Amino acid sequence: MAQRKLVIVGGVAGGASAAARARRLSEDAEIILFERGPDVSFANCGLPYYIGGEIAERDALLVATPERLRSRYNLDVRVNTEVLQIDRAARLVRVRDRVADRKYREAYDNVILATGAAPIRPPLDGIDHPRIYSLRNLSDMDRIQAATSGDARRAIVVGGGFIGLEMAENLRRRGLHVDLVEMLDHVMPPLDREMATPVHDALTRNGVSLHLGKAVTSFADDAGRVAAVLKNGERLTADIVLLAIGVRPETTLARDAGLALNERGGIRVNTRMQTSDPDIYAVGDAVVVKDYVTGDDALIPLAGPANRQGRIAADNLFGLESHYRGTLGTSIVRVFDQVVGMTGVSEQVLRRNGRAYQKVYVHPLNHAEYFPGAERMMIKLLFTQGDGGLLGAQVVGNEGVDKRIDVFATAIQGGLTVYDLEAAELAYAPQFGSAKDPVNLAGFVAANTLRGGVRNAQPDDLGDSLLLDVRTPDEHRAGAIAGSILMPLDDLRDRYRELPTDRPVVTYCQVGQRGYNAARFLMQRGYDVRNLVGGFATYRAVHAYN
Amino acid sequence: MAQRKLVIVGGVAGGASAAARARRLSEDAEIILFERGPDVSFANCGLPYYIGGEIAERDALLVATPERLRSRYNLDVRVNTEVLQIDRAARLVRVRDRVADRKYREAYDNVILATGAAPIRPPLDGIDHPRIYSLRNLSDMDRIQAATSGDARRAIVVGGGFIGLEMAENLRRRGLHVDLVEMLDHVMPPLDREMATPVHDALTRNGVSLHLGKAVTSFADDAGRVAAVLKNGERLTADIVLLAIGVRPETTLARDAGLALNERGGIRVNTRMQTSDPDIYAVGDAVVVKDYVTGDDALIPLAGPANRQGRIAADNLFGLESHYRGTLGTSIVRVFDQVVGMTGVSEQVLRRNGRAYQKVYVHPLNHAEYFPGAERMMIKLLFTQGDGGLLGAQVVGNEGVDKRIDVFATAIQGGLTVYDLEAAELAYAPQFGSAKDPVNLAGFVAANTLRGGVRNAQPDDLGDSLLLDVRTPDEHRAGAIAGSILMPLDDLRDRYRELPTDRPVVTYCQVGQRGYNAARFLMQRGYDVRNLVGGFATYRAVHAYN
Repeated sequence: MAQRKLVIVGGVAGGASAAARARRLSEDAEIILFERGPDVSFANCGLPYYIGGEIAERDALLVATPERLRSRYNLDVRVNTEVLQIDRAARLVRVRDRVADRKYREAYDNVILATGAAPIRPPLDGIDHPRIYSLRNLSDMDRIQAATSGDARRAIVVGGGFIGLEMAENLRRRGLHVDLVEMLDHVMPPLDREMATPVHDALTRNGVSLHLGKAVTSFADDAGRVAAVLKNGERLTADIVLLAIGVRPETTLARDAGLALNERGGIRVNTRMQTSDPDIYAVGDAVVVKDYVTGDDALIPLAGPANRQGRIAADNLFGLESHYRGTLGTSIVRVFDQVVGMTGVSEQVLRRNGRAYQKVYVHPLNHAEYFPGAERMMIKLLFTQGDGGLLGAQVVGNEGVDKRIDVFATAIQGGLTVYDLEAAELAYAPQFGSAKDPVNLAGFVAANTLRGGVRNAQPDDLGDSLLLDVRTPDEHRAGAIAGSILMPLDDLRDRYRELPTDRPVVTYCQVGQRGYNAARFLMQRGYDVRNLVGGFATYRAVHAYN
Repeated sequence: MAQRKLVIVGGVAGGASAAARARRLSEDAEIILFERGPDVSFANCGLPYYIGGEIAERDALLVATPERLRSRYNLDVRVNTEVLQIDRAARLVRVRDRVADRKYREAYDNVILATGAAPIRPPLDGIDHPRIYSLRNLSDMDRIQAATSGDARRAIVVGGGFIGLEMAENLRRRGLHVDLVEMLDHVMPPLDREMATPVHDALTRNGVSLHLGKAVTSFADDAGRVAAVLKNGERLTADIVLLAIGVRPETTLARDAGLALNERGGIRVNTRMQTSDPDIYAVGDAVVVKDYVTGDDALIPLAGPANRQGRIAADNLFGLESHYRGTLGTSIVRVFDQVVGMTGVSEQVLRRNGRAYQKVYVHPLNHAEYFPGAERMMIKLLFTQGDGGLLGAQVVGNEGVDKRIDVFATAIQGGLTVYDLEAAELAYAPQFGSAKDPVNLAGFVAANTLRGGVRNAQPDDLGDSLLLDVRTPDEHRAGAIAGSILMPLDDLRDRYRELPTDRPVVTYCQVGQRGYNAARFLMQRGYDVRNLVGGFATYRAVHAYN
């Protein structure tokens, strides 16, 4: 029997997963793994933490060496070897051994493209300054580490996405001053702005100078250091610039081979991860996926999906029918003492797409208040108006954020509704949660909203209502919405007749719960009342950094 | 309009939740909350941690005081008041104020029974010894604290369930020697035995003397201290005995009122939480619930379900149709440095019910190996043979156990299958998980099993197969299955011809992954081969404490 010959281009997440799976499915296939760089299967999500020192051993980042892939999976691993061209007519690839500087051809039966995505380098004046870096692989990491050793004092991070944030934290750990420049009005672009407020707070608290809503227009040399010139004329100078404004699918090979791409350059694939050429598959950051919730085409560079897609491509190649279901964008990042996670679609995307939705905010404790160490998290839940189907969730806090994001992600993948979250039975012991878990609480508030048990006011939609603060006098004094009047919840039954009946009322408290009780009471007394969902905590998050 | 008059019996989890919800739904209802003890709405899950000192303030355990319930919810809270009888014909309750020693009647339109469950006290000789305690409320807690102060040196905990384990840990924290006696062959009876092995290890490592498979037959006085006599004749002496062998629904009131009970004394309710008398509802530990997975009747005393049932009873009473969906038994407990959680049905219950099922074990790291602090957890997943529907999951480890249990619980509630776990998109950053999360890994192994990609051997079903250890020589020397031969995975392709072809082979490694690769290879070379699922780690868990 003729051996199937599989060529895989790219040896990190998706490529390495595909190769290992392919071998497990077929002992007889010939599997060649080409990797342009010197390393395969390295921990790209760990690079910032080696720079910051939290990961002490560089070798720890080498998840699997070429030798290991050879001995364990009988893979023909060729590092430092660039695939230059796919000749589909001849069914061969032309490659170049970068060490021996030798070109040769390799025939294939199938190809899996796992070429990833490259950091975007905008064509700005001065972009080629030698002190401007981006971080994609171990060589980049080594260069950045060298450049931030010795007498380096200041760094500029351009871009407030995952890598920008992780690098800001880790450059602070290395003792550098950090300026973080983000073109949008908030860091973590996929997140809604108000959910980024605790991250902004954490960055500022930890000595990162935040420059939000500011664009870099050029770079310049400044006596051997590098200067970033902002659109408003401001000039920041530093020993290094870390460019982290996003990535672009690396698909020159696919384009040159005539494979179908989308308008942003991503490789089009079907759910089996097949490109427009049925013999060529593609996986990972280079491909166009379906957004799980909206069904729209999207480029969502994430390690988990890349690994799964690699597995799926191998399955289909070796006789196991397997389909990719789309990407939710479930993701998480730790920024100093804050953890922020998201899954599904954001409000900004829903607005952009003109989709109807409802949203609630809650600020529950991560575990029982009576057990030491409880901390508040902020949850935003997006759902459909009609049946309460889950659209997306965002959570920011510290301990237990990862858990709730994963529960929400699982709930979306299970097609659950806010009513299911209300009823969800989750594990409770005082160290881990509450008898009413934050997930339940989000479900309660969302379901109460849909059932009409309460009308919610959103923090950006208070109209000219009378603002009624039902917290305690101490809380009111410590910070309140301008123009609000104080009537603590426990006094409300005695004092509500003081309120005007000819004006709509918005009740609010710190996190929304007492406000809800107050609103329920006033509704039943005939008032036109809404409750500020998520209370003053949400209000502050919305109106901070404006 | 006549006010509806609601009488609630029992003021802790379910009763307090019902009362608060009832008030939010109806400002006009008259709501009387009778509580036999002095406290309402206290944190019963926190009691052991106050004894151990981790919760420093007793007041922290008082989640809501009677005063707070009055001022905030306008509830008529009557503590120290016992409901003696429900006169259904006259639609009134007879009560006794235990402080004033006064009896009176209170009419009702509706009753919610939230009478909970009481610690079981078996009728053994000496059971009334004054040094024998059980822990249900703050008074019990205070008494136990007093009894373990001063010169108390030794404690005997009878029963290895949640409370027994938590008390064993906290009595150790108080400096006492602890003997833990459990009648079954493992602690945490709802858990399958092998999953309790790490808990047994943790108890032993932390100085708890374990007495598994031993029953107490009587108690006796021993010079003012208390002795427990075991069935094997052994005699343990201590300053206190903590009796924690389980609880029994407290339903005398319901029985006397002629409400339908099941054979174990639990109050029968429909999904609206209505008893056999449509005007009387019951919630919490006193009621019979449906097991979510099996559909069987069950008594499952847990705080989360009690709270939700209280809310559901109030909803139905005040016009919101609401149904309880059954109890999964999702639960978690920390025992020293081990955390153990479970959801859905266990293997022992499936066996008892004669249901077909499949099981797999995995031992993944809680987060990326390359990030410091990664620790292994052990996951057992139970699922249907046919379509891979989830039946139950058990997880033991430390960090991240709670997250995976909640994801499995949500997956069961979403009707997901092992194929969905394979595809699940969960949040990955190196501090929180891996690109292939433990949940995915469990899904991979389960789905591979169902697809026939590998045949699993279970640790208690190795037959007379040739046992092939594919780990390294160092690992083999450190502990291996008796009679197994060593052939490291990386040598297998060169050496497999040394293996006999006329005998079935079981491959194994440490956690199952290399064994799987080896089995895949040998299958394709024509061997009759199975892989020991979960590897030597599972084997050890199954065969420890035998």
